[in-house]
Amino acid sequence: MKNVITISREFGSGGHTVGEQIAEKLGYKFYDKEIIEKIASESGLSQKYVNENAEYAPGTNIFSYGFVGRNALGESISDILWQAQCNVIKEIAQEGNCVIVGRCADYILKDKDNVLNVFIHADMDFRIDRIINNYGETNEKPEKRLITKDKKRKANYRYYTDQVWGQAQNYHITLDSSVIGIDKCSEIIIDIINNIS
Amino acid sequence: MKNVITISREFGSGGHTVGEQIAEKLGYKFYDKEIIEKIASESGLSQKYVNENAEYAPGTNIFSYGFVGRNALGESISDILWQAQCNVIKEIAQEGNCVIVGRCADYILKDKDNVLNVFIHADMDFRIDRIINNYGETNEKPEKRLITKDKKRKANYRYYTDQVWGQAQNYHITLDSSVIGIDKCSEIIIDIINNIS
Repeated sequence: MKNVITISREFGSGGHTVGEQIAEKLGYKFYDKEIIEKIASESGLSQKYVNENAEYAPGTNIFSYGFVGRNALGESISDILWQAQCNVIKEIAQEGNCVIVGRCADYILKDKDNVLNVFIHADMDFRIDRIINNYGETNEKPEKRLITKDKKRKANYRYYTDQVWGQAQNYHITLDSSVIGIDKCSEIIIDIINNIS
Repeated sequence: MKNVITISREFGSGGHTVGEQIAEKLGYKFYDKEIIEKIASESGLSQKYVNENAEYAPGTNIFSYGFVGRNALGESISDILWQAQCNVIKEIAQEGNCVIVGRCADYILKDKDNVLNVFIHADMDFRIDRIINNYGETNEKPEKRLITKDKKRKANYRYYTDQVWGQAQNYHITLDSSVIGIDKCSEIIIDIINNIS
């Protein structure tokens, strides 16, 4: 039985919305930004720092000070953040009945039998439309913003997991929301959860 | 409307069976080995040669003589085979209502709006079980055989498409048949074909 769903997603693909829809339909808890407070509490780092760095590898965020200091155990702030993230995600998964968006949760939980790993992606036009409509204006060109965001997510995933972000073999299902539609993506995932042993 | 389905697959994952099931349910034509005769006829090469080389990049098949000779146009036998494969796959897709397994069909048809690209993969144990039960004895260890086959498919895909085999973004849906089940994979794909515009 699978009662934990991790959703990795390209920026603007609607992965967050898919996660919310699934959680609502199944009566599961939903974790995206909600996880930040827990990681901050677990690590002792500020919510602001966790928010700015939890999805970015050390060095890819210009505000990161991940490599600056190390504690008595030789851990950098990045190490502490990663360890807290792993602990929090494992604790949440232990309780079951939840959807976790982003934060390498697929990798952190890869040995757990009760986890379904999902990746949502979409073509550039679909994502540009969505970020303009959903996130409003930006100084950067939307395409550049999408590419930069994805690059950071990819680099972070590679740094911590040594796997390739978006490689089909790391997920039980991947879906192109621009062709299949966000609602249909959610429907397919719910169907899988309800029908596989 | 999508009325052409391409299925790329890890060896032993059941992608061939998924393709057959879909074709049967939708009343579509099914092409896997069936395509070889057409490629042989189009290229003037023997069916045996096409069979041994159509999924392998030049140099990865020890029996390949792809780079040995070139015709008056400077084309190697590999070039001729690839060109024939592209022509045949485009002709088949033009007619619609079909399922095409393997042979870089997803890439060859990537600009066509009526095509749904699928990738099927599965964990090692599931695939070992299937190749032992479905393909019988072999001198090689099953795991080694799987890895070698996948390596060849990956190299071929890379050689001709300059893309990464199994990268989610190249497919509209990818499925892990060892978790989702072969029948359920077919059901999901049929549902998509019947319900997306």
